[in-house]
Amino acid sequence: MRCHVSFTPAEAVSAPFGIVIDVMRATSTIVQALASGYRRVLSCAEIDDARALKEELGDAAITGGEREAQRIVGFEAGASPREFLEPRAETLILSTTNGTRAIVSATEGCGEVVLGSLLNLDAVAALARERGEDTVILCAGYKDAFAIDDAYCAGRIVALLGAERTDAAVAAEAIAARYPNAVDGINARTYGPPGLEEDIAWVARESVLDVVPRFARMVGPAAEVML
Amino acid sequence: MRCHVSFTPAEAVSAPFGIVIDVMRATSTIVQALASGYRRVLSCAEIDDARALKEELGDAAITGGEREAQRIVGFEAGASPREFLEPRAETLILSTTNGTRAIVSATEGCGEVVLGSLLNLDAVAALARERGEDTVILCAGYKDAFAIDDAYCAGRIVALLGAERTDAAVAAEAIAARYPNAVDGINARTYGPPGLEEDIAWVARESVLDVVPRFARMVGPAAEVML
Repeated sequence: MRCHVSFTPAEAVSAPFGIVIDVMRATSTIVQALASGYRRVLSCAEIDDARALKEELGDAAITGGEREAQRIVGFEAGASPREFLEPRAETLILSTTNGTRAIVSATEGCGEVVLGSLLNLDAVAALARERGEDTVILCAGYKDAFAIDDAYCAGRIVALLGAERTDAAVAAEAIAARYPNAVDGINARTYGPPGLEEDIAWVARESVLDVVPRFARMVGPAAEVML
Repeated sequence: MRCHVSFTPAEAVSAPFGIVIDVMRATSTIVQALASGYRRVLSCAEIDDARALKEELGDAAITGGEREAQRIVGFEAGASPREFLEPRAETLILSTTNGTRAIVSATEGCGEVVLGSLLNLDAVAALARERGEDTVILCAGYKDAFAIDDAYCAGRIVALLGAERTDAAVAAEAIAARYPNAVDGINARTYGPPGLEEDIAWVARESVLDVVPRFARMVGPAAEVML
């Protein structure tokens, strides 16, 4: 079993098993939403795709998402995991700046795609170990560039896998080891807006949810993610 | 002054000042060759380009380079810095797997392009500080993937710049801080052939050469590099 980390979408590689990470906030939010009782999340790269799905699904779905960390106009929720502690519909249609795109892309290159975050750190690492296949951890990054919060989380997963590692996996583990805890690892980031302190505290809680969202199928242009 | 690191060619960005790094071994070798008295290095992405230039320049040039760490058939030297301690001609025509490509690519996106390595660590960092412009450190990587030896060197330069940093620059510094010395940083790499121990020891010597090779102009398809 070999483990690799793609720090940016441009260097994403194919692998039998793929773990997508967007700590702030898409994958943390999807993990939380499914753990809270949403039956599925439809992950959309584009805002218009989300709107079209909402049109089709009506009250069976709610729309969530952000651009530049701001709720999308006309959407019913933003992209904070704290907005999805109680299910408001069967389906969450989600579109974010980086994460939902990364999920859609991952489905093209990986045999099985799951979502990782600090919230489900132990669960996702345990599943990867159980699968035992070559694994790539795909960091969503920020606007196609390297994001250190995702690299931190990737490094934490690498450390739990005990697999043979590529240079990028070794580097991710070195990055994770630099910070005494997850809040410091996330706060090492230099991008993004201020004012997300409560979300940072939320997504930095480790292994509090024992769920691993997985890609099930494409629903139109959206990646359907469920438990 | 802002500092960014591109860990792979795919995520290379434009900047006023670019520092190309291929510790094992292209940029270390070019730094050494120019410090040893070669007047210029013609950095070629393709083997055929190097052969055509040799045809044109004759005895005024020697050819050096490698693919898969093996000397290219018909070339007069390999790609070890230890082969260029005495000038055997005015011009070194060099083509390597990753580094010489990265140099050619960098000339397309950066206003000024220089070469960095551990051998000229202090000199290249001092020049970047003197320029004071936004700087991108472009890691050659290994076959388009992340290489931790280059990331290590990038992190060492970041630490010397004292500039505002992007996430990738913060991460590079974290990677460099993980290793007690340059030999350990280079040996963290998981790629490449065995048997380069003497070259590793050579290129790990820090700030022993006070030269900064810079891109001067294109000579056909080759990037002309000189002091």
